[in-house]
Amino acid sequence: MKVGFVGLGAMGEPMARNLAAAGLLAAVWNRTPARAAALSAALGIDSAPSPAELAATVDVVIICVSADADVIRIVDALRPAARPGLVVVDCSTVSPDTARKAAQRLGEGGAEFLDAPVTGGVEGARSGRLAMMIGGSPATLAKVEPALSAMATRIVFMGDTGAGQAAKAVNQVMCAGINQAVTEALAFGEKLGLDMDRVIDVVSGGAAGNWFLEKRGPTMTRGTFAPGFKLALHHKDLAICLSMAANMQIDLPLTAATLDDYTALMADGFGDEDISALYRRKRP
Amino acid sequence: MKVGFVGLGAMGEPMARNLAAAGLLAAVWNRTPARAAALSAALGIDSAPSPAELAATVDVVIICVSADADVIRIVDALRPAARPGLVVVDCSTVSPDTARKAAQRLGEGGAEFLDAPVTGGVEGARSGRLAMMIGGSPATLAKVEPALSAMATRIVFMGDTGAGQAAKAVNQVMCAGINQAVTEALAFGEKLGLDMDRVIDVVSGGAAGNWFLEKRGPTMTRGTFAPGFKLALHHKDLAICLSMAANMQIDLPLTAATLDDYTALMADGFGDEDISALYRRKRP
Repeated sequence: MKVGFVGLGAMGEPMARNLAAAGLLAAVWNRTPARAAALSAALGIDSAPSPAELAATVDVVIICVSADADVIRIVDALRPAARPGLVVVDCSTVSPDTARKAAQRLGEGGAEFLDAPVTGGVEGARSGRLAMMIGGSPATLAKVEPALSAMATRIVFMGDTGAGQAAKAVNQVMCAGINQAVTEALAFGEKLGLDMDRVIDVVSGGAAGNWFLEKRGPTMTRGTFAPGFKLALHHKDLAICLSMAANMQIDLPLTAATLDDYTALMADGFGDEDISALYRRKRP
Repeated sequence: MKVGFVGLGAMGEPMARNLAAAGLLAAVWNRTPARAAALSAALGIDSAPSPAELAATVDVVIICVSADADVIRIVDALRPAARPGLVVVDCSTVSPDTARKAAQRLGEGGAEFLDAPVTGGVEGARSGRLAMMIGGSPATLAKVEPALSAMATRIVFMGDTGAGQAAKAVNQVMCAGINQAVTEALAFGEKLGLDMDRVIDVVSGGAAGNWFLEKRGPTMTRGTFAPGFKLALHHKDLAICLSMAANMQIDLPLTAATLDDYTALMADGFGDEDISALYRRKRP
């Protein structure tokens, strides 16, 4: 199986490196050509001149870009190469509607599509231990599972096209709430004058234990907010979640509050920081 | 070292059993005598007629009760037996002020006191893998650490008397926020029609992963809310946290919202359920 990778950002680059380590990566393409050139030189693999030319030489194209419009742009660029036997896997976090649009457009040429958003942060991308939520057909998943296994240790089939993105929306809503929970609690601890490294250690070992506290607690309490997961991207995801919720006429109050907090932080110039920069609005 | 245990509730009983398994438990006392009689018969250890008579026969008394008034009542009952060499360890979750009051009253007789609240749920109490937050003197902690190690795998010294309870308050605030985060997100997932066991599996593997989701997600989405951690007790803890926050003139909005939710649930008769019964107010 030959795999091509589109989108060599903070998540995509380490994911592509893990595919290369598994001997599966044949070629890459990136909107900013310098990133693709650097990685292709480092790994000794091809840098394709366009998404379609990449797709023509591989069995599987994996996409990992930022926004809905980016996915649609890549999908449209891939359409000339869409053919039976080609599988396109989108690991970006976008709306279920975008996933269905992508599947439909690529399906016209006979290509198969999976929505396969991931969670686990840059740490998970680097270690190849992401969790991946799959929407599409089980038969398509079976075909590409060896490639996905190079990037993820937990690959869960969620249902038809879009179901992977729906599960990721649940994940992003939970991340927003956990960010609120952790920042409120740690700001309270700082105000109480506690040794925050010890608080993070002991709280991590119990019923409030969570990934975000362990990974981001020590840095947020030191006032450093390097991404990680860029706040502006989570803001974009939460807007999708709130739109999905509005369509179903349900409220997501914690998600809405987090969107407002992020909007204020972006206005203050913190959009490129990690989502833990929410602590800026909480700490004493 | 001979240990006596006071308070054989959902947490205390399994903690006492782990002390017995380590060969350290000499005697127990409980407000409801039947529970003490049953455990003393099962373990072949003494059931003391009063806290003071328990304390007279042991080196360490461990308390695990529910509320501030309960701790003060036990401490006052222990005072006749307070003497140099006796260490009293309170594993209850109460206010830092109660811890300071207990230390002062027992100190008058020459006894030493540690506040040592725990986290890890009934699961942690049973497995002896609790996390414990210590306030008091490091020398006192060193004396009793072998006994504490029978109940907890993470024992963290936080500072002077009350600092253990302050750290626990941070933990309880974080638990409240995580409860809100998990229930909001899972209700969203149910409304989206997703297979919730799969959602819980995949989300647990990533950046939103947390203890509460793994342990309580599968039961809350099935509509079962057996404690676990009783909602009315968390309500009591959050009232302490909000009072501490008010004293420092800071807001804990998520904690305050959770207190309101719990108040409503208690009014509807759900106070004896697990805190995950918050899902009753969120699910579609």
